Amino acid sequence: MPFIPLEEHLPGITGLLEYRKDTAAPIRELTQILLRGPSSLTEGERELIATLVSYRNECTFCTTAHTAAANVLLGEETTSAMLKQDINSAPVSEKLKALLNIAAQVQQSGKNVTADLIQNAKEKGATDLEIHDTVLIAALFCLYNRYVDGLSTVTPTDPAFYNGLGERLKANGYNRLPQGYDHLKNKP
Amino acid sequence: MPFIPLEEHLPGITGLLEYRKDTAAPIRELTQILLRGPSSLTEGERELIATLVSYRNECTFCTTAHTAAANVLLGEETTSAMLKQDINSAPVSEKLKALLNIAAQVQQSGKNVTADLIQNAKEKGATDLEIHDTVLIAALFCLYNRYVDGLSTVTPTDPAFYNGLGERLKANGYNRLPQGYDHLKNKP
Repeated sequence: MPFIPLEEHLPGITGLLEYRKDTAAPIRELTQILLRGPSSLTEGERELIATLVSYRNECTFCTTAHTAAANVLLGEETTSAMLKQDINSAPVSEKLKALLNIAAQVQQSGKNVTADLIQNAKEKGATDLEIHDTVLIAALFCLYNRYVDGLSTVTPTDPAFYNGLGERLKANGYNRLPQGYDHLKNKP
Repeated sequence: MPFIPLEEHLPGITGLLEYRKDTAAPIRELTQILLRGPSSLTEGERELIATLVSYRNECTFCTTAHTAAANVLLGEETTSAMLKQDINSAPVSEKLKALLNIAAQVQQSGKNVTADLIQNAKEKGATDLEIHDTVLIAALFCLYNRYVDGLSTVTPTDPAFYNGLGERLKANGYNRLPQGYDHLKNKP
């Protein structure tokens, strides 16, 4: 049960974004820019970064939601599953592996990111902006995961909920999430 | 030396906010709402939450900057110093102690926030919104600290730099930080 009164039909982050709409607006905007804005990383690749960080923070709602979004965007479920077990054996590019290894350190502490990890990413073709965005996406999901779990929001157990959410995150992105709320009412 | 090319005269977060202005805008807006917007917590109290989380994340730039801001807002330097050693012996209200103890858990993981910590905060007079904002401020500084250290930004060593920054954060808040950049150029 959430620690503060949230609308019962809005689990996980969705209830928090409704609880305080003025803080929700910039959070949504930042997420939309980073995960759906113009980038040399695909939307699927960026959702994999979000998935990895949420998984390592053990945030079940965020992990399941962004796994679903990544799977929908990638058109398969293998990569997100393998990534959680071992970044370096996941079927992604060497560049993305290098970026995911940076994200994995950011999840623990910014101070854990080493010059060697950065050098490796650059050698695998990562641009400065891709490195920047990887660090900021990883940091953003450290915010989300703490926000969602720190207020003890509800975590649905029905896989259909997350599949529907993943489809909506592909179709609508993050700015327009409120428009998906009508659907959420039917899938608590 | 930063891992990506940042303007040399803009240390810590300031260079990152200049590097990608489209992501900087919502980050600034969120910070302005949470730390300077209308609230039953004073600006000084909210800066203490930011200080505690940054300190525990060992982010020297953010810790020193928000310590300076808190000190300027509170008009003294004792509280921020004592807080870092022991929350419960700091000269703050019982309500703020309870909220700071929640923030300290959020710094580690959202999952560490217990119903007992929330109950204690409510018993000490904390409102739902204060609890919400405490969790979100703590989560936001987990983002900032990782962003600043994960890209290896420059940390000035001159206390005068942070004192000047603290004064500007009191006078201008976060949305208007860019207007302080002219001053920063003289205090690297």
